[in-house]
Amino acid sequence: MKIVRLDQVPKAPVTMEDARGITKQVPLSRNDGAPTFSFRVFTLEPGGFTPYHRHDSEHLNYIIEGEGALVTESGEERPVRAGDFVLVLPQEKHRYRNRSAESAFVMICAVPKEYE
Amino acid sequence: MKIVRLDQVPKAPVTMEDARGITKQVPLSRNDGAPTFSFRVFTLEPGGFTPYHRHDSEHLNYIIEGEGALVTESGEERPVRAGDFVLVLPQEKHRYRNRSAESAFVMICAVPKEYE
Repeated sequence: MKIVRLDQVPKAPVTMEDARGITKQVPLSRNDGAPTFSFRVFTLEPGGFTPYHRHDSEHLNYIIEGEGALVTESGEERPVRAGDFVLVLPQEKHRYRNRSAESAFVMICAVPKEYE
Repeated sequence: MKIVRLDQVPKAPVTMEDARGITKQVPLSRNDGAPTFSFRVFTLEPGGFTPYHRHDSEHLNYIIEGEGALVTESGEERPVRAGDFVLVLPQEKHRYRNRSAESAFVMICAVPKEYE
């Protein structure tokens, strides 16, 4: 068993191309012995965004804090906020964006262990 | 893609033996096309608890709201509260208990799709 809080988990900047103002934490993962999937947490600073990309894995997200948008395959921006659950299926193009000028946008991004 | 909030997800009582005061919601699962794992949410009423059990699947938990305890294999009660991440490995005996007399204890319980 492992019990951990975010302030105990190392935070690393995300340096992917087409991303801005993001840090990543991995509170629970295969490194802890999880056999199937991992919980990462991304913090998007005001104005920050994740890459507009697609991949073979699904994302299961839970928004812990803030207000932002999920940019979909068609380019539509769907609003998302603290308390929302989001499923991004494999190969669905997507991007998260923090639309706030003042507050962070924080979300769990759970992925199969093959992805992280 | 699916975006959903808990107040849009049906809530069902958990009627397992050795459980009390629990409801379950399943905001994201294989029924939505998720290929690997699911997000369920359990709400434990004041004094409520989950079964003291073990199983082949891991749980990845995130405590959304409240204060409670995780009863471990040795019977120890480890405190958990909103903001905690918890990994319960396969075959680790465990139980969640809401120790509050007034407030609900709400947590994400993510499991491989074979489990739910």
